[in-house]
Amino acid sequence: MNTTGTLLRLTTAGESHGRAMVGILDGMPAGVKIDFDLVSLEMSRRRPGTKIGSGRNEADEVQFMSGLLDGVTTGTPIAFMIANTDSHSSDYDHLKNTFRPNHADYTYQAKYGIRDWRGGGRASARETALRVAAGALALQALERLGIEICAYTRRIGSVAIADGFEYLSQDRIYNDSVRCPCPEVSQMMQNEIAEARKAGDTLGGIVACTISGIGAGIGEPVYDKFQARLAAAMMSINAAHGFEYGLGFAGCALRGSEVIDPFVTTADGRVATSANNSGGIQGGITNGMSVNFNVAFKPVATLMQPMESIDRRGEKIIINPRGRHDVCVVPRAVPVVRAMAALCTLDAVMLAKSHKF
Amino acid sequence: MNTTGTLLRLTTAGESHGRAMVGILDGMPAGVKIDFDLVSLEMSRRRPGTKIGSGRNEADEVQFMSGLLDGVTTGTPIAFMIANTDSHSSDYDHLKNTFRPNHADYTYQAKYGIRDWRGGGRASARETALRVAAGALALQALERLGIEICAYTRRIGSVAIADGFEYLSQDRIYNDSVRCPCPEVSQMMQNEIAEARKAGDTLGGIVACTISGIGAGIGEPVYDKFQARLAAAMMSINAAHGFEYGLGFAGCALRGSEVIDPFVTTADGRVATSANNSGGIQGGITNGMSVNFNVAFKPVATLMQPMESIDRRGEKIIINPRGRHDVCVVPRAVPVVRAMAALCTLDAVMLAKSHKF
Amino acid sequence: MNTTGTLLRLTTAGESHGRAMVGILDGMPAGVKIDFDLVSLEMSRRRPGTKIGSGRNEADEVQFMSGLLDGVTTGTPIAFMIANTDSHSSDYDHLKNTFRPNHADYTYQAKYGIRDWRGGGRASARETALRVAAGALALQALERLGIEICAYTRRIGSVAIADGFEYLSQDRIYNDSVRCPCPEVSQMMQNEIAEARKAGDTLGGIVACTISGIGAGIGEPVYDKFQARLAAAMMSINAAHGFEYGLGFAGCALRGSEVIDPFVTTADGRVATSANNSGGIQGGITNGMSVNFNVAFKPVATLMQPMESIDRRGEKIIINPRGRHDVCVVPRAVPVVRAMAALCTLDAVMLAKSHKF
Amino acid sequence: MNTTGTLLRLTTAGESHGRAMVGILDGMPAGVKIDFDLVSLEMSRRRPGTKIGSGRNEADEVQFMSGLLDGVTTGTPIAFMIANTDSHSSDYDHLKNTFRPNHADYTYQAKYGIRDWRGGGRASARETALRVAAGALALQALERLGIEICAYTRRIGSVAIADGFEYLSQDRIYNDSVRCPCPEVSQMMQNEIAEARKAGDTLGGIVACTISGIGAGIGEPVYDKFQARLAAAMMSINAAHGFEYGLGFAGCALRGSEVIDPFVTTADGRVATSANNSGGIQGGITNGMSVNFNVAFKPVATLMQPMESIDRRGEKIIINPRGRHDVCVVPRAVPVVRAMAALCTLDAVMLAKSHKF
Repeated sequence: MNTTGTLLRLTTAGESHGRAMVGILDGMPAGVKIDFDLVSLEMSRRRPGTKIGSGRNEADEVQFMSGLLDGVTTGTPIAFMIANTDSHSSDYDHLKNTFRPNHADYTYQAKYGIRDWRGGGRASARETALRVAAGALALQALERLGIEICAYTRRIGSVAIADGFEYLSQDRIYNDSVRCPCPEVSQMMQNEIAEARKAGDTLGGIVACTISGIGAGIGEPVYDKFQARLAAAMMSINAAHGFEYGLGFAGCALRGSEVIDPFVTTADGRVATSANNSGGIQGGITNGMSVNFNVAFKPVATLMQPMESIDRRGEKIIINPRGRHDVCVVPRAVPVVRAMAALCTLDAVMLAKSHKF
Repeated sequence: MNTTGTLLRLTTAGESHGRAMVGILDGMPAGVKIDFDLVSLEMSRRRPGTKIGSGRNEADEVQFMSGLLDGVTTGTPIAFMIANTDSHSSDYDHLKNTFRPNHADYTYQAKYGIRDWRGGGRASARETALRVAAGALALQALERLGIEICAYTRRIGSVAIADGFEYLSQDRIYNDSVRCPCPEVSQMMQNEIAEARKAGDTLGGIVACTISGIGAGIGEPVYDKFQARLAAAMMSINAAHGFEYGLGFAGCALRGSEVIDPFVTTADGRVATSANNSGGIQGGITNGMSVNFNVAFKPVATLMQPMESIDRRGEKIIINPRGRHDVCVVPRAVPVVRAMAALCTLDAVMLAKSHKF
Repeated sequence: MNTTGTLLRLTTAGESHGRAMVGILDGMPAGVKIDFDLVSLEMSRRRPGTKIGSGRNEADEVQFMSGLLDGVTTGTPIAFMIANTDSHSSDYDHLKNTFRPNHADYTYQAKYGIRDWRGGGRASARETALRVAAGALALQALERLGIEICAYTRRIGSVAIADGFEYLSQDRIYNDSVRCPCPEVSQMMQNEIAEARKAGDTLGGIVACTISGIGAGIGEPVYDKFQARLAAAMMSINAAHGFEYGLGFAGCALRGSEVIDPFVTTADGRVATSANNSGGIQGGITNGMSVNFNVAFKPVATLMQPMESIDRRGEKIIINPRGRHDVCVVPRAVPVVRAMAALCTLDAVMLAKSHKF
Repeated sequence: MNTTGTLLRLTTAGESHGRAMVGILDGMPAGVKIDFDLVSLEMSRRRPGTKIGSGRNEADEVQFMSGLLDGVTTGTPIAFMIANTDSHSSDYDHLKNTFRPNHADYTYQAKYGIRDWRGGGRASARETALRVAAGALALQALERLGIEICAYTRRIGSVAIADGFEYLSQDRIYNDSVRCPCPEVSQMMQNEIAEARKAGDTLGGIVACTISGIGAGIGEPVYDKFQARLAAAMMSINAAHGFEYGLGFAGCALRGSEVIDPFVTTADGRVATSANNSGGIQGGITNGMSVNFNVAFKPVATLMQPMESIDRRGEKIIINPRGRHDVCVVPRAVPVVRAMAALCTLDAVMLAKSHKF
């Protein structure tokens, strides 16, 4: 299904080489003045076209069709569109009857009996451009509530930042070409990417994200725990293969006495915890500390090397690399993770408001 | 919200020390003959009471109230109930105004302004007993479709199985006290638990799960990718802090050329892949290989040691350990992971059926 | 599906002659002190057992299992149960293979291939007892917001009240045996029922309902207009065959100039309308006037006369009347309409709160 | 909320005088070859521009942006757009601070604190153009299943057809300018419209609809009864004030013995009923007979007469008629009712498929 969210709902449509990508963001609170330059800026951060990207020149201009009056949200659904101008469909003719390994060619064919084979069709990561546009609106609503969301590259291939960061500037992160907050590590990541490009190979990595200022009491118990919503949102991103929050997988090997987050009363009388191993969530509900999580991305499967596969008749074929492809999608995934976190968070905040009597 | 699923929907209610835990499973296909002994057996595997558990003697007898005629599902909702007979509420009186660290005491209070403090209330893992009961029904429907789900303990504390298992017997796994398929590793895990118990400490771990026989074409693209649904389901389990499928977090450090799953045609003409790094899912839709995933559980926070915390007025207090608590919940989480996987899978199969014309 | 509502969700289960009727009300705001006597009172108004009812003695005692602490809602789901004590299943053995005309026997068989034939099974109006219980909780939450809901009998067979009532007392209405606010008309309705009983026949009618104090701005535009939600809720009640609000069907024959609701400013500066032909709703959203609607109920199909039908093999049979049945369900439908209106209204109020920034 | 449906979901966006109306139809079964001429034809039937309409010349060309490959549905969401070319926004400048009686001006302002005042904004019936486009796709999928949906004008003002029609041709109905299947009655309706136009007044009416070939077993019990879904869909149409199925409100005044639908076995061994007072639905599930329902539309509130009202400050004003408006929307509502019935029916059929094991 192509809708996400309960009260703030994003529905998307569009294939990478169809006429346009179309989104409808329903449920945005009324009265939020939108800064469209911020939307464009966030879009530009997902765009390929730099040395880390695929070399495609996608303008990705977002046209808003509804739900705004003089740039202010009206509470009605916001439709928006991104035209598919730079779509070299002929680049993909050779894929019509081909099942590329680790792509969705075969699975869409198996599910629907038909598929748009051009550039990944519906399964293309181009769909995430719509998420970034919608997320840029949600981020502006959250800002009014004092909630900030910061995402960054934590690992590329074998290069990783050892520890998390509590205080980060999204602008500074975006100024780094691989979206890494630590300049030394960034240089190593860039080297790793250069090597992989030379080898015709690809790299995966980890995007980390922090939600700060969210306050206590956000998130629903049991099946809609805040971490469950975040996990679903993140695992719906192309190439995402893992989600963890707080200590995550590393915490499994620790003892309980090592992961305690003792409650303390702050100088100004608020409840806080002196550590944050829980990642800001207890029982599915935020405790007022920052919410921290990681998303693992596998290396993409489109290598610049000939690859064996089969066609629709089941015959062996060789796929020769064509088109333009990312060596590492992780830096481009940073604004996507941020956008999905923003949509999830605003939705959860609205759910929490609905209970207040 | 206390409902999970789209077409197969489980709604649960109940606090650990209230009158009863109550579930309603709506959407079960009609005509499935239920083996109630299998339900009881699966329930017994989640139950504490052995040396690995909390020492509580919960009978956990499931009473079915509706939706069945002579033991056959009628397509109408199946209500079921587990009485709370062994509830020593007085064990918890000291917690009425206490916020235990890493528990949901504070967050429920912050969200609702009121909470049932007895034994964790709604946030208690006792809620998962209802999931296991519902999952035991789903497992029987899946069996008719040739789909099997197998879950097991992969890690406890510092002890882990190196590699995954393709062919497993759930019965044999359940015969092992820590639900580990490998006897040597199981013994090491039991030793680790014994040590932690002596130290008044607790342990986390990883539950692995395999869904086999699911066939290709199950799962919805984009926001309801099969892995996104599984992730949400797993992250809704108490103490779960991470989810990964296929190569997961380990795959981030590999190169694209190392994680390819080449398509092959099997002897009997089916499409398969000669490796399964994708965990059986591509583009959110199953490719016919086994679906494999891991769930990370943090060590539980109730230590058998005095712990500092604060009360509702923000005053410092010391919490002395009382009641009976698990050293390691991982073995008891195995049937819960299995149940949630079964509910997710049957729901996804029903969604896939709805598209068929 | 057996759940209704978006943020306030009622899920029900249970067959009329199974072990129990079970409901879960999820999403109730926390901190509402429940008066259980009011719940019992409302339940007693749906109960058969008077001369207008079916003669069955259903105690309909509601047992609450969760979601309450010392009688105050905690925000967690409220499970409740009504035991099926007076179920003379053997009264229904002759219906095992019979399709009663105008009942759901055949349609459930066609849909599911199996059905609980005892007393209507899942299709029995006994399910509405759960709605009344849940509605009685919602009514108490609404009362805190100054919202009142009043339902009454407007027509039974050929006897009808000409005009609507703006100011009504639900208590006085419930004091009338057929729930009619006008004593003279009530007497005529009772006479009509007595005649129909003598003839072994049944009667339909209309239940009217008024929601007052709701304020402006409640209801969602387009597909979830307040009237659309109310219509779905009312048409889900057994035997309901029509819904109208404002002038409804009668308004079709009038001219636009006859149905205008001019806006006026009240003495205290509020916006109001000097007529209320729109039934308090414009564009799906309340305008602050009372919301008025009618629900049409067909005469029930269980006559106290021999009726021709067919059995499962398609053979002609004669069904002889047995068991105890209502001549007219309309008076018993009054609390059901009221309950569904209460659930709808509280849900809509919660949705409206979620948008407020 | 701006989405309707469970498995087949239509989401719409757009204000009458914004850039475009945008819809996304998600869940359409794959492999349906679309005849776009049929879509255009159905769109033309909703379009104003004839003597019965508002005189506006809306081309209403539907542009499809996704979800189709060579005109065949691919199972992915179908985005479509209708540009707002003929939008004389300046016609509406005088309404910026005006609350027109019986319009949604005041209620949107009350709910959102902001509204697009141009031509009704989001509350404009122009939104229904998107429903007709989506419905035209659903109708083509239903045709493959042998299900036909026919809608027609049953009443305009004081002129009504006495009885329903079992066998109708949608093409012949569309050939009639007021969409009435009976030529004599049509002429009387046209006369009534001419008179009302002369008087500067408006008319309401009733649209009837028949769903044939649907078979038994479609529809969900209890809260999602087929009639409940239909009622919500119909009551979401602008100006709809009532819904009834089967005998509807007229049935309230009849006795049970007069409304029986006796089951019979047909010559070819199927189960049928010899009357259809139940409107083809029993217990919320179709019984294989035609589903029949009526939708009441109030006369629209935009008279060609000066009208008193208030502005945003609560001051009295006179609204002088401007722009172009329908005398009677009923004929234009016929394809909208048909479209909503088609979406509901296909959704219900898909739900029914999901249960089949």
